[in-house]
Amino acid sequence: MTSAENDVTLSELKKKMADFAKERDWDQFHSPRNLLLALVGEVGELSEIFQWKGEVPRGLPDWEDKEKQHLGEELSDVLLYLVRLSDICGVDLGKAALRKLEINAIKYPVNLCKGSSKKHDQIVNNNSSSIKDDVSHDSV
Amino acid sequence: MTSAENDVTLSELKKKMADFAKERDWDQFHSPRNLLLALVGEVGELSEIFQWKGEVPRGLPDWEDKEKQHLGEELSDVLLYLVRLSDICGVDLGKAALRKLEINAIKYPVNLCKGSSKKHDQIVNNNSSSIKDDVSHDSV
Amino acid sequence: MTSAENDVTLSELKKKMADFAKERDWDQFHSPRNLLLALVGEVGELSEIFQWKGEVPRGLPDWEDKEKQHLGEELSDVLLYLVRLSDICGVDLGKAALRKLEINAIKYPVNLCKGSSKKHDQIVNNNSSSIKDDVSHDSV
Amino acid sequence: MTSAENDVTLSELKKKMADFAKERDWDQFHSPRNLLLALVGEVGELSEIFQWKGEVPRGLPDWEDKEKQHLGEELSDVLLYLVRLSDICGVDLGKAALRKLEINAIKYPVNLCKGSSKKHDQIVNNNSSSIKDDVSHDSV
Repeated sequence: MTSAENDVTLSELKKKMADFAKERDWDQFHSPRNLLLALVGEVGELSEIFQWKGEVPRGLPDWEDKEKQHLGEELSDVLLYLVRLSDICGVDLGKAALRKLEINAIKYPVNLCKGSSKKHDQIVNNNSSSIKDDVSHDSV
Repeated sequence: MTSAENDVTLSELKKKMADFAKERDWDQFHSPRNLLLALVGEVGELSEIFQWKGEVPRGLPDWEDKEKQHLGEELSDVLLYLVRLSDICGVDLGKAALRKLEINAIKYPVNLCKGSSKKHDQIVNNNSSSIKDDVSHDSV
Repeated sequence: MTSAENDVTLSELKKKMADFAKERDWDQFHSPRNLLLALVGEVGELSEIFQWKGEVPRGLPDWEDKEKQHLGEELSDVLLYLVRLSDICGVDLGKAALRKLEINAIKYPVNLCKGSSKKHDQIVNNNSSSIKDDVSHDSV
Repeated sequence: MTSAENDVTLSELKKKMADFAKERDWDQFHSPRNLLLALVGEVGELSEIFQWKGEVPRGLPDWEDKEKQHLGEELSDVLLYLVRLSDICGVDLGKAALRKLEINAIKYPVNLCKGSSKKHDQIVNNNSSSIKDDVSHDSV
């Protein structure tokens, strides 16, 4: 179940989280909505890192190592609860993610979306190519 | 870069997201804080699925297929933005997650945490085993 | 501008927040997206209070005073950032809230919604009274 | 209970929300954690408005009326659920907010915080005026 660090699998994280909870007798706390609220809590901590910074450039060139490490920890906390929530809900997260990528490819065809941040339902209207002028794509 | 569906890697998702954005010329929209707010938006949609349900049991035994599929899509949206945000920030999410699991194992030693939802700083006080009576572990 | 404590107005809170920021020279940090992320951070802290509790009854009868006080502080933090964000965006929050209540009264007519948690677009379809069977009302 | 629109009180909104729920027999859905998740859902919708915009200036000078109106609605949805959640939890939100403003004034004294976005615990260390160099004030 171990892997090269640059090739971590979702099933590996799922297994580690399940073992972690079992060893500590924490399954009793890991109900779907408990985990969801814990996930929201971690998203809050992630947001706090960015909250007073204004726009920051890609790659975070000016951040100190300590701060980037903190960021990695908060991103991880969100991931770990997301993996655990999916497991507890009986959702195969990896499979679902691959499927969602396929759905997104259909929702956002390259020729209609190129360079536009419009939302799915503003891009294609009734199978025509009329493009409305409004907000934004909601998912990648 | 393909994998068995039950063994999806984070680097595979990262690559797919990067290709998806590049093909659509969406790199221009994928700044760290834009992606973070998109992630928050998806967490909101995930929460909406659970909002009027009261407590739900593990495995979601009473949910219709359509609803579980919707859940899988929202969980995936959160994951995909999280993977993309990490990439754009220059954080190796898989590596960070394995490291965070190690940190958590130290923060929440089995013998002190068993069956308790106490938070790290209420469990161990100054390297003593005194256990204070308050809220909850914040991660894992 | 002061008021009886049980009759706090939104404009009073707006004024206090503006004065608070001005005195500390914090206007420079209070951009719309900075405040939005700060709000998300506070919603995370609010969620942490409820995360390991399972369902809790109305009125929180079993909570200790200290915990209820903490809850009041986190609810307030969300409110104060929301008031400040609205002000910085040029939105009259009180006026908008009264207007939204009127919109909601139209979206969710008493005779069609009684006892149902269905979402607006599943309740009334094309001005008919056909009621579809799906998820939940999204607001109010 | 009515008021000038520019002087909306929290107790007025609380009353209106309670009446709205009662008329529709929705009290059964308004448990603390249901309302909290509904609040998170609305914060997600609020975030979606800002997600692909990059930094936006105060007052939103370039936004269309339709978009600003939409923003007012989402800000209101967050407020209305926050007011309702507080009510259901037995927290006097207006009183709590005034109290929190007083706490914040003590946590962030003008002379130590002027022009700094440092967090409370990085501003004042052990009643000394030594100012550490780290992140950000978390509230107000």
